[in-house]
Amino acid sequence: MNETEFIATLRGLMLHDGARGLADDAAVIEIGAETLVLTHDMMIEGRHYLPQQDMADVAWKLVAVNLSDLAAKGAEPVGILLGHMLGENDSAFIEGLDEALSHYGVPLLGGDTVAGDGPRAFGLTAIGRASHTPVPSRAGAEIGDAVFVTGTLGAAMLGYETLRDETDGDTTAYARPMARLAEGRDLAPLAHSMMDISDGLLLDAFRMAEASELSIAIDSGEVPVVDPDRRHDCMTWGDDYELLFTLPDGTFPPVPATRIGSVEPRGFAPLFLDGEPVINADGLGYRHAPDSE
Amino acid sequence: MNETEFIATLRGLMLHDGARGLADDAAVIEIGAETLVLTHDMMIEGRHYLPQQDMADVAWKLVAVNLSDLAAKGAEPVGILLGHMLGENDSAFIEGLDEALSHYGVPLLGGDTVAGDGPRAFGLTAIGRASHTPVPSRAGAEIGDAVFVTGTLGAAMLGYETLRDETDGDTTAYARPMARLAEGRDLAPLAHSMMDISDGLLLDAFRMAEASELSIAIDSGEVPVVDPDRRHDCMTWGDDYELLFTLPDGTFPPVPATRIGSVEPRGFAPLFLDGEPVINADGLGYRHAPDSE
Repeated sequence: MNETEFIATLRGLMLHDGARGLADDAAVIEIGAETLVLTHDMMIEGRHYLPQQDMADVAWKLVAVNLSDLAAKGAEPVGILLGHMLGENDSAFIEGLDEALSHYGVPLLGGDTVAGDGPRAFGLTAIGRASHTPVPSRAGAEIGDAVFVTGTLGAAMLGYETLRDETDGDTTAYARPMARLAEGRDLAPLAHSMMDISDGLLLDAFRMAEASELSIAIDSGEVPVVDPDRRHDCMTWGDDYELLFTLPDGTFPPVPATRIGSVEPRGFAPLFLDGEPVINADGLGYRHAPDSE
Repeated sequence: MNETEFIATLRGLMLHDGARGLADDAAVIEIGAETLVLTHDMMIEGRHYLPQQDMADVAWKLVAVNLSDLAAKGAEPVGILLGHMLGENDSAFIEGLDEALSHYGVPLLGGDTVAGDGPRAFGLTAIGRASHTPVPSRAGAEIGDAVFVTGTLGAAMLGYETLRDETDGDTTAYARPMARLAEGRDLAPLAHSMMDISDGLLLDAFRMAEASELSIAIDSGEVPVVDPDRRHDCMTWGDDYELLFTLPDGTFPPVPATRIGSVEPRGFAPLFLDGEPVINADGLGYRHAPDSE
């Protein structure tokens, strides 16, 4: 059973309404008068980080990738639970964790610490409080919306290649990604649809179009990339944790962002890239680590 | 860095008040007028389950051990987030997950699915709603309280040995433990102190005494065990997920439970077993799997 089959089978179980059909970045639950946003992401050695990486960076990234899911919902972090497999350089791990929690002002709530052999596994659950309801989803894009992205894509890819090849270069974007929490909060009241780009712009735009049952047309020449000679790589590699969102046509984004396309009636494919239909998601994104599937 | 050192270092980070100093079964956070209880436990192949075990049982146990932490706080489950590493027999895993969620009436909220090599790792976050505040802690025992335990201890140990040795016998207590949710809810308004026995009665009683800054005296002859000839094993092996709690002297427990001791002023040691002081926790509990530390 691969990931797609596994998740499809999970959809047959008893799902919470707030699970959003297991098709969003995070779960959303109403508790009294509050709306909570919950997410859980794992990182596996050799899959989601290179064995030679600084464990302080691994801990930072574990926090940041989860907070990025809260950012995509416009949520303010309340706290985190850590699932930690003990191993080498745990002091560095705790330093990186400390830096991330301090940077984002997020306290530790608890978790679990286990021993293990083989590749290390970490899990993190982030709990946030919605700053705006309804909480933006992937599924809210509307015909005529403009499609935007924050930041510049491809920096994480270059950082990864620098680490892998042990060359000179800036690895920050890969090793210490930033969760766009402030941007997410500013966008939540305005965006029809929003998600973070964890698996690559094209794959994530494809998913947004599928969830919204519309088509998204992207003009690749408009996409801000770190290396125009590798534009396609920058649009598919992922790990940038920027925000992809749609706004009603004419609404000016309240945060720095670039318009890269528009939302159209559902056409022949969920995604159109420079007018060409992209029919299936294979090869559109996520190939972070050398042995990842 | 071992588990104790790691957790001690984590206590130096920014902790949420609801983290209870990382010394309780679960975190407790106030959200509006509600009180939420959150817990996260991992299970690692070869550490927390035997590689030959039915993956349906592994999934069940992953749910049950987390719900047991909610039970110890008297909380009603709201939902769970699953961190799943793909591997063999995932169809069986989903069947067991389905059975556990249906049995406890707990919906799936979301989570993460990853690929990995080597021993499999799973994580589960359970979110509950407190049925009574203040939420019972480990730290609330008072001098003069009576100490109680639900159920009969040692059944999980026998189940584990049956599985390990491939002999005939009932493995249910080890393979499909039950979370004492109803008992926890009934006890929450009355118990001064409460926790689940995941790591063995003596170790967990030691921890309750430490957290409450008192001594707990246990009369081993009163402890209900499945095999009186292996009384000490039954009191230290763990994995029984019964509830250990203290009530003011004279309060009759509203659920089936056995009085096994009493709470005393802090004496020479946190724990007294048949009048003998137990000064440190080494060897008191948790040796679930053959290669565990």
